Amino acid sequence: MKIGIAGLGTVGGGVLDILSRHGDLLAARAGRPIELAAVSARNRDAKRPGNLEGVAWEGNAHALADDPRIDVVVEAIGGDNGVAKELVERALQNGKSVVTANKALIARHGAGLAALAEEKGAALRFEAAVAAGIPIVAGLRSSFAANRISRVHGILNGTSNYILTVMEETRRDFADVLAEAQALGYAEADPSFDIDGIDAAHKLAILSALAFGVKPDFDAIHVEGIRSLSAAELRYAEEFGCRIKLLAVTRLTDEGIEQRVHPAMVPKGNPIAGVSGVLNGVTVEGGFLDKCVMEGRGAGAGPTASAIVADLIEVARGDRSPAFGIPAKALQDLVPAPMDRHKGTYYLRLPVIDRPGVLADISGILRDAGVSIESLLQHGRAPGEEVSVVLTTHETEERRMRQVVERAEGLSSVLAPPVLVRIEQF
Amino acid sequence: MKIGIAGLGTVGGGVLDILSRHGDLLAARAGRPIELAAVSARNRDAKRPGNLEGVAWEGNAHALADDPRIDVVVEAIGGDNGVAKELVERALQNGKSVVTANKALIARHGAGLAALAEEKGAALRFEAAVAAGIPIVAGLRSSFAANRISRVHGILNGTSNYILTVMEETRRDFADVLAEAQALGYAEADPSFDIDGIDAAHKLAILSALAFGVKPDFDAIHVEGIRSLSAAELRYAEEFGCRIKLLAVTRLTDEGIEQRVHPAMVPKGNPIAGVSGVLNGVTVEGGFLDKCVMEGRGAGAGPTASAIVADLIEVARGDRSPAFGIPAKALQDLVPAPMDRHKGTYYLRLPVIDRPGVLADISGILRDAGVSIESLLQHGRAPGEEVSVVLTTHETEERRMRQVVERAEGLSSVLAPPVLVRIEQF
Repeated sequence: MKIGIAGLGTVGGGVLDILSRHGDLLAARAGRPIELAAVSARNRDAKRPGNLEGVAWEGNAHALADDPRIDVVVEAIGGDNGVAKELVERALQNGKSVVTANKALIARHGAGLAALAEEKGAALRFEAAVAAGIPIVAGLRSSFAANRISRVHGILNGTSNYILTVMEETRRDFADVLAEAQALGYAEADPSFDIDGIDAAHKLAILSALAFGVKPDFDAIHVEGIRSLSAAELRYAEEFGCRIKLLAVTRLTDEGIEQRVHPAMVPKGNPIAGVSGVLNGVTVEGGFLDKCVMEGRGAGAGPTASAIVADLIEVARGDRSPAFGIPAKALQDLVPAPMDRHKGTYYLRLPVIDRPGVLADISGILRDAGVSIESLLQHGRAPGEEVSVVLTTHETEERRMRQVVERAEGLSSVLAPPVLVRIEQF
Repeated sequence: MKIGIAGLGTVGGGVLDILSRHGDLLAARAGRPIELAAVSARNRDAKRPGNLEGVAWEGNAHALADDPRIDVVVEAIGGDNGVAKELVERALQNGKSVVTANKALIARHGAGLAALAEEKGAALRFEAAVAAGIPIVAGLRSSFAANRISRVHGILNGTSNYILTVMEETRRDFADVLAEAQALGYAEADPSFDIDGIDAAHKLAILSALAFGVKPDFDAIHVEGIRSLSAAELRYAEEFGCRIKLLAVTRLTDEGIEQRVHPAMVPKGNPIAGVSGVLNGVTVEGGFLDKCVMEGRGAGAGPTASAIVADLIEVARGDRSPAFGIPAKALQDLVPAPMDRHKGTYYLRLPVIDRPGVLADISGILRDAGVSIESLLQHGRAPGEEVSVVLTTHETEERRMRQVVERAEGLSSVLAPPVLVRIEQF
């Protein structure tokens, strides 16, 4: 099987590295040699971890899609539009199979690309797009396919998990830890995709599609990042026996599919709470299976390339089954469950001035919203100065908590925006 | 695709249940309907969880292997010989694919059966044979196939893990907890397969074959069970920041493949230490992947049937790739690394009489064997009565520890057999 790689950065370079080192092993496992026929990348002179001798070099990625010698195109360019999308479409159009790590592309255009692949008898594979070193795409496509999946949840972004882990361990604030992570190369100069939950949401859209047989619908996801968290939240989480994680959750409800990415307090007994540093973790729940939890590396050259080459092996073995596990034409439009109607328990911290009547005002707002308080504590006493009122609720509806936050913000005794964190009782 | 199920006990009944409930879902995921054409079981009148209307009933399982209407035989009889083996061979001989949960059969005869399947162009699949709800077979066959795997370790037997978990939580002794587990139906009347490590070893033999491209070699596995553990070991493990687990490990060493099943102290920081109750957990380590940990249900009707039906879906999609991921003729004979040469750290508890000179005798034996002591403690003081001397070692060779145990048993001050537990520093 002859392949072409478009993009020789971290991911493409990793694939080149595996192909160069493990040729015999891959041939045995794939049933035939996987040969690198051509590559395309911007910088021809960069040093790469692998052997490019005898490999054709194309200045234009599209040439890979048109090259009749190539059976499979590996797209490692990135981005949900532009060259990456054109390349994938063109390769599929020409009947070539495509393997990609491009989560944004699949989250945005996965259904259409899957349909095109099926029409042309080609495979479209993207194991590396979600939690690279964890075989969650294969899990949902195949291993767990005998079950009606009810929920998938986990940690899908290593950068934000690293930041939260360091915040927890060192008790430092978000901005401080982010700056350090950037200096160490663990976070991008523009960290928004990672810390604002967008990267995790791209991955969640793909998991929803695989789990529930729907078209990926990135825009239907409720997304919050971790910027608003302070060391205080991490400290209180500890008091409640929880860790704070940037959680991605998709689940089937009576009103549709609830997809959300946001910081959450996760009880330490939940395996996902134990996923620390740059690791990712995912839990799949469904009828006969009950539950399966997986933990591993979510990014980096090695694990991402490992997932891409696994896809290549499956394609070499002849697998042309539908990209999302069921025929593209059978994928339903996703009916989103409104986030306003989400039911759960909540943590709320209100930075207030310490004066008589403050607690009465706050508890009045909760009463009026119909929210029942589970615990309420005020740490520190400094009359006339800022202290934090921290409370947790019994199960209630999201819209009620939004009403509470809005009205609390209007109180003169509340000195800064309230911090609301969902508590997951998995 | 038409299938026949041989054996309608827990496992076969579970498959019947899934097929009866999820027909449409399975057809969408498999690309065509999976129809139950015939079954065979001893007791025709038992109540079963599913629909047998219009399904042919065969008194003899062999009839399924000979029935020209049947494409795939599900073997759910069990046992590494007799009817199960004859049925699988006959079905493959007739060109039918086979899906089985039979770990003993695959551990003993997997290489030959895989060769037969390939010769006949049929698939042989056994995801359910190892840690049912955890897709570890698919992982090693496909998802992790781009890597040279260096080690696989984990908890592969739920019954013994349940007993160890209860022993740890309740501080009760082995025999007591086993009796309770039997009364509750969590352990068999004859619990030997589970608690003596045989079941875990069957599964480990299969994982070795998948991970390292060798023929399964059950007889090469060093197997110890959990019978010799007392509440004392669980208590000391806690003191050392560990949990005791019946660990199954297979790894590539310079001297061959080291396969072992035995109780081990696992540091609490290792995800496998957090796998409690009847759950199973497996960690795969290899070059590019780094590490992936999976946790889930290892047995029971639901998870086992879920794994079997996942295999059926793959077969329906057309997958005929080799059973162990590489062609059967390429599977090497396993070269076992001698357990005597195993290197590790150890826990040793010696029930001794509390009198002067005992510690000098013991430390002399360790010195003579060339074993370096990391810590030594003697709990309780009761001159003239039994106390425990507990020690941990620095890294040493297994043969040296055996020498220590043998010589210590000869001391008149040692009142009962020493308890040796390996400490895993993963």
